Amino acid sequence: MSYDNNNVFAKIIAGDLPAHTVYVDDHCMAFMDLMPQAPGHTLVIPKAPAENLFDVPEEALRHTIAATQKVAAAVKQAFSAHGVMIAQLNGAAAGQTVFHLHFHIIPRQGGADLGIHSKEMADGAVLAEHAQRIKAALG
Amino acid sequence: MSYDNNNVFAKIIAGDLPAHTVYVDDHCMAFMDLMPQAPGHTLVIPKAPAENLFDVPEEALRHTIAATQKVAAAVKQAFSAHGVMIAQLNGAAAGQTVFHLHFHIIPRQGGADLGIHSKEMADGAVLAEHAQRIKAALG
Repeated sequence: MSYDNNNVFAKIIAGDLPAHTVYVDDHCMAFMDLMPQAPGHTLVIPKAPAENLFDVPEEALRHTIAATQKVAAAVKQAFSAHGVMIAQLNGAAAGQTVFHLHFHIIPRQGGADLGIHSKEMADGAVLAEHAQRIKAALG
Repeated sequence: MSYDNNNVFAKIIAGDLPAHTVYVDDHCMAFMDLMPQAPGHTLVIPKAPAENLFDVPEEALRHTIAATQKVAAAVKQAFSAHGVMIAQLNGAAAGQTVFHLHFHIIPRQGGADLGIHSKEMADGAVLAEHAQRIKAALG
């Protein structure tokens, strides 16, 4: 496998596709998942090209998990989540659909069931409002 | 919430409970999940006391994700996995059952369905053999 420079997240990093971005630093960015498994579902990615956990350089991985920690705390606060699931999928057999490394941050509420696969696009205005909430929590 | 020094993983770290360990370094250890969601299901934990992603010190988190990357590659190889799912659950509402931070490494095979919750203990001899396979892949 080799990294595809035309994947959707590469285009978001390059500014060629829009995203509901909640966080950016020198190494990473975070934005709303377009097909959320729960309200507040956010993705964190390295800016460096990496397909998955197996080809990402250690430094880029370190920055990405640090950003995931920071953004997850904001998501938890913004959605008053009882719990937070972090998931990172490698390979189509594991459910990966965009082949640029990403960490899912999924707020969980007690008793709420979680779909494994998202099936439909969320409303853009809803995602924009969710992104605002998370940005506010990031301060 | 505060860290419970008597949780099962704290006892494994202290050597007071056995585990099918596949990897140890100064900061982390990895061992077979006793109730695997798929054959080869392995857990990576920091030795430092941390309940979840929100209270783990950044350095311990960095070491833990580096160990997860290394062990996940060995698990993928040892089980000829088509894909690998990484999951890290924070809070009972997210499915966390042991309140010491851990990353799940779950091999996925194309078409194989994945139970969300493990329900029964795996056979110890099977886990021991799986641990040997992963240790061999780690070299």
